[in-house]
Amino acid sequence: MQYNISMNERSETYSVKVGNINIGSKYPIRIQSMTNTDTSDINATFTQIMKLADAGSELVRITVNDEKSAAAVGAIKSLLVQKNYNVPLVGDFHFNGHTLLTKYPDAASVLDKYRINPGNIGSKEKFDSNFDQIIKIAIKNDKAVRIGGNWGSIDKQTLDEVISNKINQKSDVSYSDLMKNILIKSVLTSANKAVALGLKPEKIIISCKTSNVADLIDIYESLAVECKYPLHLGLTEAGLGRDAIISSASALAILINKGIGDTIRVSLTPDNNESRTEEVEVCQQILSSLGIRNYNPRVISCPGCGRTSNTYFIELSKSIKSYISDQMPAWKKKHPGVEDLNIAVMGCIVNGPGESKHANIGISLPGNNENPAAPVFIDGKKYKTLHGDDIENQFIDILQSYIEENYR
Amino acid sequence: MQYNISMNERSETYSVKVGNINIGSKYPIRIQSMTNTDTSDINATFTQIMKLADAGSELVRITVNDEKSAAAVGAIKSLLVQKNYNVPLVGDFHFNGHTLLTKYPDAASVLDKYRINPGNIGSKEKFDSNFDQIIKIAIKNDKAVRIGGNWGSIDKQTLDEVISNKINQKSDVSYSDLMKNILIKSVLTSANKAVALGLKPEKIIISCKTSNVADLIDIYESLAVECKYPLHLGLTEAGLGRDAIISSASALAILINKGIGDTIRVSLTPDNNESRTEEVEVCQQILSSLGIRNYNPRVISCPGCGRTSNTYFIELSKSIKSYISDQMPAWKKKHPGVEDLNIAVMGCIVNGPGESKHANIGISLPGNNENPAAPVFIDGKKYKTLHGDDIENQFIDILQSYIEENYR
Repeated sequence: MQYNISMNERSETYSVKVGNINIGSKYPIRIQSMTNTDTSDINATFTQIMKLADAGSELVRITVNDEKSAAAVGAIKSLLVQKNYNVPLVGDFHFNGHTLLTKYPDAASVLDKYRINPGNIGSKEKFDSNFDQIIKIAIKNDKAVRIGGNWGSIDKQTLDEVISNKINQKSDVSYSDLMKNILIKSVLTSANKAVALGLKPEKIIISCKTSNVADLIDIYESLAVECKYPLHLGLTEAGLGRDAIISSASALAILINKGIGDTIRVSLTPDNNESRTEEVEVCQQILSSLGIRNYNPRVISCPGCGRTSNTYFIELSKSIKSYISDQMPAWKKKHPGVEDLNIAVMGCIVNGPGESKHANIGISLPGNNENPAAPVFIDGKKYKTLHGDDIENQFIDILQSYIEENYR
Repeated sequence: MQYNISMNERSETYSVKVGNINIGSKYPIRIQSMTNTDTSDINATFTQIMKLADAGSELVRITVNDEKSAAAVGAIKSLLVQKNYNVPLVGDFHFNGHTLLTKYPDAASVLDKYRINPGNIGSKEKFDSNFDQIIKIAIKNDKAVRIGGNWGSIDKQTLDEVISNKINQKSDVSYSDLMKNILIKSVLTSANKAVALGLKPEKIIISCKTSNVADLIDIYESLAVECKYPLHLGLTEAGLGRDAIISSASALAILINKGIGDTIRVSLTPDNNESRTEEVEVCQQILSSLGIRNYNPRVISCPGCGRTSNTYFIELSKSIKSYISDQMPAWKKKHPGVEDLNIAVMGCIVNGPGESKHANIGISLPGNNENPAAPVFIDGKKYKTLHGDDIENQFIDILQSYIEENYR
């Protein structure tokens, strides 16, 4: 058996340049996020973009929903450049994108990608001319475009027809299947239309989001077969808290494991407006859990059981995790590669020594009835045994020395 | 495109009866959990088993690590039966299972499944006789056995050889591949040995856990091909908090989507000893995110963006979620099927009305620059528009009436 055989190769997609990065199957899966500040509040938006970029967001999207916001884009970009933040900016347009991009050429020139939504381009009569207008601005400014469908914004007439068929049970095809087909058709038709207007295929990224994991997987599997545009993955409107994190992780992990997805976003309802960077951290953890890329040293610890009625292993795991997160800003600069470090904090003899040997550094604390001694293992070999009340500090010293020696 | 085509059919496995439930591909995926109370503390263990069962754990495992614990098993079971808790009990045995099961026939008779670990049965010389002793007790008592390997408890001699090869780079095969092969061989050889001793194949469940997601997927894909024993899935020693939840969800979602897994456990280091039921809730959310089975009404809500600088949609989502969790104990009894309800709480016009129409009940709150009115949709049709300061109570009234009418 070979390592990670069960992960499919990435589905081949074009390389699309967005600002200073490339998106597509030849490049790493890119993490993105979206601000939730009012874009016309230049300072708040600029500050949040920096925070998201610092957290690891490789693109940041801002809504450009009105004239004040469109007028603010240039100033936001200038402030970012002054602070040496070159993270690509994506403008999110609905309903009035054609007008705003025309009236605010500075925004059109400064944004690195325009996200448009086929369901919110305009009514049937106006769709073609509005769409045409946006695509021509993209061509003129040499910008990438995300054609982003969402089952929450299928055009009203189509949606109402489908819902009426569902209520009256008029259709042989299930509601879910109808929705999936409509969504896929809508984004691919729009993409073809953009190409017919002269936009290069290597300027197009596609997304097609639903809030239902099973539907999302079906849709993206079809998209991966039907086109070579890079795919932006995300479960839309995932909701609040732990449930939303689990649904998003499930959806994205399944697709990424199938080799599908070139850029990802996790859409969490923030518990408060301070926690916007959580969506970036969740993306990072999904990628690192799949072995694609690490962002932080990992602390492996056991769930405990009746053998570990002493909860010291929990306290120690927490201390180590918080020590890591305090140190990481400095370690990242001083100790490249430290994000690949594995640390095990184990509660008893059952899996303790074994798991500790697999880790770079591991400690196996004593369970009930065991000797009050905690062997420490380094790269699979017993290093020393800790005793007494000061195990935490002794273990942190060992950890710190290991990092200084091994990651320079 | 058809609904949920991307989910594979369950890999065929035997049906194994454990207490009053069956485990195998003909039955739903079973959720299980493990106590972290000292098993010899009869009252604490009995109380935690009831809590885990109430949370939805369909089997509960307890460690049986010493004579006091083995002696307590019968009393724990009696208390459960008195309270009408018939949840199957699994005994977790390491090192001394053969002795405890022999010396405490009451425990052997009362437990519904024995979990044994090929790495912790005994040294090479003693393995066969200890293993033989346990399997014969299982046969005599007509019990199921989980043969549960773990990369943290591969037998010491084999592990040290592999690690030494790794350090000295003596092997052509990677460390990860060696570990995976050793683990699989260890559980399948033990299972075959148990069958040779007379245990029916329909009494055996297999697990083979590692703390690395990619390795875990490889291992279980192989197991699903190589045997028909029901598979117990879990990422071992996942760690603390959000990271552990994401890693576990990623691993389990990928495998379940491939049709692999008959019973699942999520191993979280608890943040404190009160939160043991979290491992059950995470299992439930993984299954429900994949559309396999619902446990609670779902609240879909958007992540917000620069269009929703008013955070009322966050407050309303939280209130609805907490209303649901307060009501669910009563609803479960009075309103069967209510767990399939979808509620959308949306922050602006972009996806608000659409997502609300897809839900059973949805509300689309006004974003910036929008009319201060909140249309409510029921089963895809506009029901009424809410205004004013009392939207939350009005919406909860609508929700409550919908549930009373639709789930009896």
